[in-house]
Amino acid sequence: MFRKVSHVGVAVKNLPDSIELFSKLFKINSVETEEVPDQKVRLSFFHVGDTSIELTEATAPDSPIARFIEKRGEGVHHLSFEVDDIRAEIKRLKDEGFQLIDEHPRLGAGGYWVAFIHPRSTNGVLVEISQKATSKATER
Amino acid sequence: MFRKVSHVGVAVKNLPDSIELFSKLFKINSVETEEVPDQKVRLSFFHVGDTSIELTEATAPDSPIARFIEKRGEGVHHLSFEVDDIRAEIKRLKDEGFQLIDEHPRLGAGGYWVAFIHPRSTNGVLVEISQKATSKATER
Repeated sequence: MFRKVSHVGVAVKNLPDSIELFSKLFKINSVETEEVPDQKVRLSFFHVGDTSIELTEATAPDSPIARFIEKRGEGVHHLSFEVDDIRAEIKRLKDEGFQLIDEHPRLGAGGYWVAFIHPRSTNGVLVEISQKATSKATER
Repeated sequence: MFRKVSHVGVAVKNLPDSIELFSKLFKINSVETEEVPDQKVRLSFFHVGDTSIELTEATAPDSPIARFIEKRGEGVHHLSFEVDDIRAEIKRLKDEGFQLIDEHPRLGAGGYWVAFIHPRSTNGVLVEISQKATSKATER
């Protein structure tokens, strides 16, 4: 089940500048920053209501975020949805004909298991599904 | 105050096809459809948690959505945030240096007053702020 929009990922060139900008936009000063070496990104979360805006900066030229910005410029990169059971959703979505980038969950930011669906099967929207890593996603 | 992400707007070429696709993705069958003649768009909302995904199709070749798809293809078009007081936010954001597309609220979908901020002042993200039209946004 798709429970909620966990976050909206925004690709940015310069994280400190963007933190300043979005702090002004939202009038929110508290922001959590984290690095995900596996994805070659550094990210900062702004909590707005029940979801977050995740600013994402590349930490290497071959980061997916660097390639995205090169092609399309800064802007919304992906939508992340929290699901109850990520392995069951991966199977269901594959069976429905969606093109999974990750056929197995991998550890993303904030202690979540994540899997991406290719935007070519979702009208140009890069969709991430996520499940809290405290759940037993890997043990089955 | 930015209360929550009201919806994420997704530009699509063919609304019925995309409704079918996103119904499968979310495993949600109920969807509300509405036309906004002013913006030359037809849209459908999927409620996911406390926010919505708004699929938006152009109803004329000169619709902003048609122009967006021509330039960038289908995908995420804008992020909409519900605010308490849209007129106060417009003033605050202008004072902060954000470039407002709408200096006055106008009536959008779902009975909301809305105003857009130009993506060139928000790292490529088209930001909409919105306030329920039952509030007295116009009366001041």
